[in-house]
Amino acid sequence: MRVSPPSFPEQAATLGALLRRPYRQLSGRLYAEMAAQGFPEIRPAHSAVFRHIAPEGSRLTELAELADLTKQSMAYLLGYLEEHDYVSIGPDPADARAKRVRLTKRGNAFIKALLAASQRIEAEAGKIMGRAKMQQLREALVALDQAIAELP
Amino acid sequence: MRVSPPSFPEQAATLGALLRRPYRQLSGRLYAEMAAQGFPEIRPAHSAVFRHIAPEGSRLTELAELADLTKQSMAYLLGYLEEHDYVSIGPDPADARAKRVRLTKRGNAFIKALLAASQRIEAEAGKIMGRAKMQQLREALVALDQAIAELP
Repeated sequence: MRVSPPSFPEQAATLGALLRRPYRQLSGRLYAEMAAQGFPEIRPAHSAVFRHIAPEGSRLTELAELADLTKQSMAYLLGYLEEHDYVSIGPDPADARAKRVRLTKRGNAFIKALLAASQRIEAEAGKIMGRAKMQQLREALVALDQAIAELP
Repeated sequence: MRVSPPSFPEQAATLGALLRRPYRQLSGRLYAEMAAQGFPEIRPAHSAVFRHIAPEGSRLTELAELADLTKQSMAYLLGYLEEHDYVSIGPDPADARAKRVRLTKRGNAFIKALLAASQRIEAEAGKIMGRAKMQQLREALVALDQAIAELP
């Protein structure tokens, strides 16, 4: 008798798959909306920069560490974002050998637009699934994050 | 007066950030556990293959489409997995010009181990946050996924 292979994770509806599906849908909608709002150059990969950059600017090496990327990969992302005027890269005033990355006016406008679109999509999805359920979901996601961190 | 930049998505606790945090923790734990169980070669990037490959095998081009990767990127991932004996790549019986990718015994063993570890971590996290809350979370994640799909 031929043994059939185990069903694979996507079909098994693991917790990981359940978390990933709405995240990817949300992300797809957000970036499409950002493109429509005048930020067509930004890809999900660039979130590694926008997610971690500090308001006062960050060092390239710091950003690479926070995003768990090599310095080379981070430099590549930053080069692209500098070229399209989302960040500026200059010497670090505190350390002449280091580079400091800052958001430009356009970079700040992008983040502001991304947050606004994210809140709007969440509010609209909340109307469909019920606002109380959305609030419970938010709380449960925080609880899950804490629970996983507490595992041995 | 200096205008301070908007706080960026990670601090704003957008729905996206709330979904991503437990997902990344879960994923980190899973792959560390898989390495400890004898599958050290597998990286999160390889999930693009394991998530989509059909029990009867899949074409390289199908896998690339499903994973939203170029044929070249998918061929690169598959080459690595073939080298480490997780998949076999041969001619497609239905089309001599196409290639068919199948899970090897080791590839099937990996998926089985991954699913078992995923269910165990979920059960343990459920003990910490409460099983009823975990069940509600699962249902709310499905509802969210549907709600986002229904948005105009």
